Amino acid sequence: MQEVEISPRLAGPNARLIGKPGGLLELTTPALVLDLDAFERNIRAYQHQVNLHGLQARPHAKSHKCGEIARHQIAAGAVGVCTASLHEAEAMVGHGINNILITSPVIGSGKLDRLLQLLDCGVSVAVVVDDHEHAASMAAAARRSGHVLDVLIDVDLGMGRTGVSNIESALQLVNVVCDAEGVSYRGIQAYSGRVQHIEEFAERDHIYTGQLRFLSELIAALDKRGLKPATVTGGGTGTLALDCREGILTEHQAGSYIFMDVEYGAVTLRVNDGDAAFATSLFLHSTVISKNVPGRVTIDAGLKSFATDGPLPRVRAGAPVGTTYSFFGDEHGCLTFPTPTDCLPLGSIVAFVTPHCDPTINLHDYLHVVRNNTIVDIWRIAGRGVL
Amino acid sequence: MQEVEISPRLAGPNARLIGKPGGLLELTTPALVLDLDAFERNIRAYQHQVNLHGLQARPHAKSHKCGEIARHQIAAGAVGVCTASLHEAEAMVGHGINNILITSPVIGSGKLDRLLQLLDCGVSVAVVVDDHEHAASMAAAARRSGHVLDVLIDVDLGMGRTGVSNIESALQLVNVVCDAEGVSYRGIQAYSGRVQHIEEFAERDHIYTGQLRFLSELIAALDKRGLKPATVTGGGTGTLALDCREGILTEHQAGSYIFMDVEYGAVTLRVNDGDAAFATSLFLHSTVISKNVPGRVTIDAGLKSFATDGPLPRVRAGAPVGTTYSFFGDEHGCLTFPTPTDCLPLGSIVAFVTPHCDPTINLHDYLHVVRNNTIVDIWRIAGRGVL
Repeated sequence: MQEVEISPRLAGPNARLIGKPGGLLELTTPALVLDLDAFERNIRAYQHQVNLHGLQARPHAKSHKCGEIARHQIAAGAVGVCTASLHEAEAMVGHGINNILITSPVIGSGKLDRLLQLLDCGVSVAVVVDDHEHAASMAAAARRSGHVLDVLIDVDLGMGRTGVSNIESALQLVNVVCDAEGVSYRGIQAYSGRVQHIEEFAERDHIYTGQLRFLSELIAALDKRGLKPATVTGGGTGTLALDCREGILTEHQAGSYIFMDVEYGAVTLRVNDGDAAFATSLFLHSTVISKNVPGRVTIDAGLKSFATDGPLPRVRAGAPVGTTYSFFGDEHGCLTFPTPTDCLPLGSIVAFVTPHCDPTINLHDYLHVVRNNTIVDIWRIAGRGVL
Repeated sequence: MQEVEISPRLAGPNARLIGKPGGLLELTTPALVLDLDAFERNIRAYQHQVNLHGLQARPHAKSHKCGEIARHQIAAGAVGVCTASLHEAEAMVGHGINNILITSPVIGSGKLDRLLQLLDCGVSVAVVVDDHEHAASMAAAARRSGHVLDVLIDVDLGMGRTGVSNIESALQLVNVVCDAEGVSYRGIQAYSGRVQHIEEFAERDHIYTGQLRFLSELIAALDKRGLKPATVTGGGTGTLALDCREGILTEHQAGSYIFMDVEYGAVTLRVNDGDAAFATSLFLHSTVISKNVPGRVTIDAGLKSFATDGPLPRVRAGAPVGTTYSFFGDEHGCLTFPTPTDCLPLGSIVAFVTPHCDPTINLHDYLHVVRNNTIVDIWRIAGRGVL
């Protein structure tokens, strides 16, 4: 097992703990902790799964926003990464990642300028379009700058968020892209967001399979006109088993499989003939800071440390079995014990499974990377922030 | 009106827009925008109010986490600022703020070391305690480092989050602090969190006045023993009028008054004999990125741009009256128009009042400071992140 290089770069207030025996207990909290063994196993399991079914892996970096993680994914066999925003793409390029798909339309002259500057770095950055005027103006800008921009047509599978939702519009848009100088038609993107978190497999299967029928029809219509997409990219952790079974996508965009949060812990994935394909690797460590009320304590992790859009954080270690978490303001959480006589001393470290990993990661600057109870590195969440 | 200095420092992807006519329309979004006129009026109105009632202002920097804002508050007459965390305190000291109260117990050896290093910088940093063993260990650490740490006793007004909740415990804790070398008894802190957002004034008045009775009794008990607190610090934007009327606090800790989010927009403040004492100064600008579904558009601001713990963001400008926002995933929002035939072109900028300002600020790296529709500066939210 290859050890990650311990780098002396700026790594926040816990930098001195890298390699220190017992350093994990001295961690300044609230702090995100990555179990490197579980994380590496998840990356291998994902790559194995997509390889088995002839898919290419293009994991979504919006989940981690971290150059080191993208490098791990590519080292395992991924062709590149996705990002949700231009800012994330810039952060990835800054960390040496040279093959990126931005999965949301890049709109506005300021962003277009920055996108073209990224291409000046000699990296491969593809974008999606769902509007023919936008496609035409992108083509014009790329042409002026002397670049040819790789473009995928964004297809809406029913969420109504971005993408074209009927075959006629898709054909029209592909034609605009094929006819315009400055852009190159590379394929289609079809991502279905909401189905990913449907907990019951059969229900997810039913809804998603219906959505994929439209995608198959669209691909057939394109094929008939000599416009068969070279790449069909999409999918997430929740639909991985289905994407492998259906064989419509050529490239897979899962993100959360590396971390496995509370939300995905409740989803029956059926990857690899079982549910144990991926294990939780991401945790938040917090400290008990007040204990004056019987039956509960206050910790230093509140709604600035955990995402609040999904389920509650779940206690993993450091507190009695049955202890529950509730939000207690911006900087505080409340731990309620199963019996009123339970307590924890001030300074106790309590570890949590994170509620919804993507927006939780976005709150933090650092991932504290742990193997065998030792902090072996600290990775910067370089792509957080949303500009 | 004094113009803020335009600094050439690293200010994110929008730095080139500082001073540029029309630059506000070119802003790379999602981006926080601060209306400097409204912000300055809020700061003056707050200082005027506390001056009028003989209180000192110590605004809470957990709302803004921004050195430039702290400097504005101090220039207007504040004695210093509060921070919720050590990390925020470090960021404030890094921006030249030299009088800080950390309003939550600082627990753990790693944090204590960092706290004492802050004192090495020659700044005044006071802390709160609510546990006598913690007070004793802090005193010992301060003594070893050759410092005397200013300490306030944290008093619980009924929330049960931090603080001592009865007179006996408070007296005991004050005695521990007074007897120990290495710490100096500076007074008490009594903050009531949940009452701040009770929308109806009479209800807030009723609950808070009851809580303040306990505080008065505690102060009388301390006074009787020759331990009268020199400082009684607490209060927030929601209780400002009550804190001024009751005259129990000596120092006031409001935070959100500078911004006035959707949450506080619904709270009847009764400051200054009216409700117009503070105006909304903080906005989020977002861009329309998809428009393929009739009656609605998709924008680039989702649950990584807006806090999700409170009310929804409210459209302020750039969309038809009656347009509503809903979350549409991590990076996207959905704008639903009042009539299905309404639309907005791709690239349109829509401005929002932020839902809950503190955790919204915490998501972003920059405040784009605007006067007369021109970006006059970009301030870094240096204290964001939670370590």
